[in-house]
Amino acid sequence: MTQTLDSAGALEQRVDGWFADLQAAFDARDSAAVAGLFAPECYWRDLVSFTWNLKTVEGRDEVAAMLDEVLDRVAPSGFAVTEPPTEEDGVATAWFRFETAVGRGTGLLRLTDAGAFTFLTTLDELKGHEEPRGRRRPQGVDHGAFRDREVYAERRRREAEELGISTQPFVLVIGGGQGGIALGSRLRQLGVPALVVDKHPRPGDQWRRRYKSLCLHDPVWYDHLPYLKFPDNWPVFAPKDKIGDWLESYVTVMEVPYWSSTEVKHASYSDETGEWTVELEREGLPLTLRPQQLVLATGMSGKPRIPDLPGADVFRGDQHHSSQHPGPDAYAGKRVVVIGSNNSAFDICGALWEVGAEVTMVQRSSTHIVKSATLMEIGLGGLYSEDALEAGITTEKADLIFASLPYRILHTFQIPLYEQMAERDRDFYLRLEKAGFELDWGDDGSGLFMKYLRRGSGYYIDVGAADLVADGEVKLAHGQVDHLTEDAAVLADGTTLPADLVVYATGYNSMNGWAADLIGQDVADKVGKVWGLGSDTTKDPGPWEGEQRNMWKPTQQEHLWFHGGNLHQSRHYSLYLALQLKARYEGLETPVYGLQEVHHLG
Amino acid sequence: MTQTLDSAGALEQRVDGWFADLQAAFDARDSAAVAGLFAPECYWRDLVSFTWNLKTVEGRDEVAAMLDEVLDRVAPSGFAVTEPPTEEDGVATAWFRFETAVGRGTGLLRLTDAGAFTFLTTLDELKGHEEPRGRRRPQGVDHGAFRDREVYAERRRREAEELGISTQPFVLVIGGGQGGIALGSRLRQLGVPALVVDKHPRPGDQWRRRYKSLCLHDPVWYDHLPYLKFPDNWPVFAPKDKIGDWLESYVTVMEVPYWSSTEVKHASYSDETGEWTVELEREGLPLTLRPQQLVLATGMSGKPRIPDLPGADVFRGDQHHSSQHPGPDAYAGKRVVVIGSNNSAFDICGALWEVGAEVTMVQRSSTHIVKSATLMEIGLGGLYSEDALEAGITTEKADLIFASLPYRILHTFQIPLYEQMAERDRDFYLRLEKAGFELDWGDDGSGLFMKYLRRGSGYYIDVGAADLVADGEVKLAHGQVDHLTEDAAVLADGTTLPADLVVYATGYNSMNGWAADLIGQDVADKVGKVWGLGSDTTKDPGPWEGEQRNMWKPTQQEHLWFHGGNLHQSRHYSLYLALQLKARYEGLETPVYGLQEVHHLG
Repeated sequence: MTQTLDSAGALEQRVDGWFADLQAAFDARDSAAVAGLFAPECYWRDLVSFTWNLKTVEGRDEVAAMLDEVLDRVAPSGFAVTEPPTEEDGVATAWFRFETAVGRGTGLLRLTDAGAFTFLTTLDELKGHEEPRGRRRPQGVDHGAFRDREVYAERRRREAEELGISTQPFVLVIGGGQGGIALGSRLRQLGVPALVVDKHPRPGDQWRRRYKSLCLHDPVWYDHLPYLKFPDNWPVFAPKDKIGDWLESYVTVMEVPYWSSTEVKHASYSDETGEWTVELEREGLPLTLRPQQLVLATGMSGKPRIPDLPGADVFRGDQHHSSQHPGPDAYAGKRVVVIGSNNSAFDICGALWEVGAEVTMVQRSSTHIVKSATLMEIGLGGLYSEDALEAGITTEKADLIFASLPYRILHTFQIPLYEQMAERDRDFYLRLEKAGFELDWGDDGSGLFMKYLRRGSGYYIDVGAADLVADGEVKLAHGQVDHLTEDAAVLADGTTLPADLVVYATGYNSMNGWAADLIGQDVADKVGKVWGLGSDTTKDPGPWEGEQRNMWKPTQQEHLWFHGGNLHQSRHYSLYLALQLKARYEGLETPVYGLQEVHHLG
Repeated sequence: MTQTLDSAGALEQRVDGWFADLQAAFDARDSAAVAGLFAPECYWRDLVSFTWNLKTVEGRDEVAAMLDEVLDRVAPSGFAVTEPPTEEDGVATAWFRFETAVGRGTGLLRLTDAGAFTFLTTLDELKGHEEPRGRRRPQGVDHGAFRDREVYAERRRREAEELGISTQPFVLVIGGGQGGIALGSRLRQLGVPALVVDKHPRPGDQWRRRYKSLCLHDPVWYDHLPYLKFPDNWPVFAPKDKIGDWLESYVTVMEVPYWSSTEVKHASYSDETGEWTVELEREGLPLTLRPQQLVLATGMSGKPRIPDLPGADVFRGDQHHSSQHPGPDAYAGKRVVVIGSNNSAFDICGALWEVGAEVTMVQRSSTHIVKSATLMEIGLGGLYSEDALEAGITTEKADLIFASLPYRILHTFQIPLYEQMAERDRDFYLRLEKAGFELDWGDDGSGLFMKYLRRGSGYYIDVGAADLVADGEVKLAHGQVDHLTEDAAVLADGTTLPADLVVYATGYNSMNGWAADLIGQDVADKVGKVWGLGSDTTKDPGPWEGEQRNMWKPTQQEHLWFHGGNLHQSRHYSLYLALQLKARYEGLETPVYGLQEVHHLG
């Protein structure tokens, strides 16, 4: 992109003019006029600021319909472009800020000759409830002399002693991995009484207890938590124990209210009191909490899915789900059958091979594989990398750019990237196919990130183990496992795979399985399937939803929320969930526009 | 400062011209020509890059003399201005980078019509030994498949098990407060095998165990550690327990090799082997280490100074040094005599008053008092504040600007600031004087920071307790304590102060007291007094030293170093100490220019 000074001036005028028209239409409360400023094909994605929801409206009619309902209440104002707009291929891109009746927000516009093509509006903060950061940071000490002053350590001790006993958390977050911790941290900063509970002995154990070779498959630039970034010596792909230690330190430093060794037994909601009754055991002792809001942050992957195999009871070796796999050390020289061919399966096969186990991977359906370095460079590098940072794309900006691409057309941006990747690593894929491995690129060739958003499974980011399969070092079998014998797994075609260990790398069920267990099947059915976009592709049935089902936004069950995902989502979307909870804590009106309907049970 | 574009161009030309002349003179190895580019009154402060020392040379003759010795070896090159220079009151200021034969550096020039007035040169990194940060960050995992791979947690465990047993640290850092931790962190990043030992059970206990009301008197912007900045919700004045938790988390996150509950019993240096033999007890078990380099980071305040009072043995109440004071809780309603009138004395008096103790402060000599808010605004705000950050003065830049002001004339910049402060808080000082409190502003009116640098004592940053003295809520007595009785402290003039508790807020002796205890009086005498500038003011006898005695630079005892100070110094000067140690670890030639002489024993 090259611009002369003149064309830059013209661009600025054009964008400023568009915003002036927008403001005038808003001021006139004229939904149709606003919609007329959008292109016929247009996407307005709102994160909480207009809709008290995560909501994408598509096309002028939906824009107008949304505004008809919310415009009076939102009273949008103060739109201002915050840095010089840019233009590429006829599309102008502009960052802006704005206000609503109750908050301040940031947005990103893509403008064509036909009008706004994409329009992102996000809520940053609620007026009068700004976070104590920067110039608003706390003093830390009250200067002066006061009788019977309570010092910091005393206050912290008292708060910890009172919480759950004489004071109730407004929000209870179940699950203390990166999701729960990021949300707990934001709620703490927003002054919302909250508590994060987790069954493990220490924060970070969610990572530490996984198989020993586990490292993040996402790179550091994509993985920062809110408030406290990794130092710039942090490894590109952090090993699990290092992430575990980071999370534990983060809980301390950010003063996240966190109970370890705490298991939730049952939760029930009372329509009358608008309150949850949550039975739990903290370090073995029973306790009842009565929060107003309940957040399930128990892992977007949901509950381990373990096939009910005939003969599992007679099999004499070890068998466990991938999430329970302890690592390879006990299996040197042993025969191992790993059922599944996605990320965990490959990681576990690789680590087992490294200690000299005899490993067979059972591929049940095709898998999408991308080499890590290729994915970093082509898939993420533009937004999350040292290059991006040098170009001024901070993590915060990258998150918003990412969020500004409408889910409906996101695959169209992804397909060409994956075509590049296929080209770049052509030999690698040929070798895998020659070895009999069944590859795919997603139903529409849109690759890994769309698979993640649609179904949360079906891929492997290759960090080396794919070569083992290609080279025959890890053996490959195909089809479903029919049953186990005393010492083998037997496939549907009769193939017998002798085994001392069977690992079920068979994935996870929908997150609302947790809701069924903790609350009840009725509530799980009421909220329906969690995750996915309704893309009508494998494992993500339609109709089109426009946003990820049930994530970070109001559900059909009052006062129940789902939170989670990778570190990027835990960081970015925890903001919008925290602001929704804060608004409710402060008693603000929060009429939800476009509450999602339920089309699938789980 | 206002500049037209033209004058900015002229300024740039002038500065670039000066650097071109400098480079030419360097290239010609012409010390006299270089000196001629300096003003008759000039100060070149070098932090390791030219001198392998912290050294300020003053005047053209000293500049030439220094260069005569180092120029061939240093081979300075590549001087380049890194951002547009600025000009104020006829002084041009320019940031620059440069290289030497072995390293890369950053500097700051102040240029007048007469030539360079101040010239700061600092070493950033050694060529070929750059830190693994940013684009050089570690991968975290070796992609691929390798037989018997050692994963991160295994490597960390092995390193911890071997350290001090089968492997020796090259550097042993005694003392694990902010100084030891910052240095340990830098050495880790530089790949220098090091170990930090501390007697307390946990990192951060150095702060936690202090009196309960203690908060930092320096503000957050001044207090960052290397690599990992406080999040921007961090309080302005962090309470001691919060700092303690931060330090503990920092040790984990930065992987600082750190032994808690470890006491050093004795250290001795062998000229023959060039090695230290250090006897210590780790969790009660004796152990011998053989490091090459020994760093005392045991607190710039050094050893507690406790007066040897007649009657101390018959006094029936509690008595302890301020560093051992547990906080006020046990002394509600009791009579307390606090001997001393500096920071700790005021903090302790204030906290005791808050629980209802009957407190008398014994002032032995005059004290310099500045109100915290005033000091922040007038004293530090230009470099360390939200305003400074907004003006682009990062912590790193602020540190260098601070370092660029030569110690010789630093007081001339300070005096007007303290005159402003005296004016602003005139009523406050009048009230204190009326209450009989003896005030001073330093021998030459240069205030708090000069007192800190010269003697490390003699002041109170008022956070509220001064009002208690002014109002008579905390009683004031004057003079020396002559002796104790069973239930009172008796002053030299016969005044009897009944007491249930006597607190000795009587300060600290020179840091080389630690050297005397741990190594021997001979070595303590050989290295001489630690801290101070030789300013020929109270408690800082001449002759002029030009830099702080023995801090962060080679001493008369080979392989022995002193490190410490406030968080700012621990952050900034740990860099130069770490680079000096790294160079020795790598076996680089490190000829020290201007090794300091010893003029005072302790």
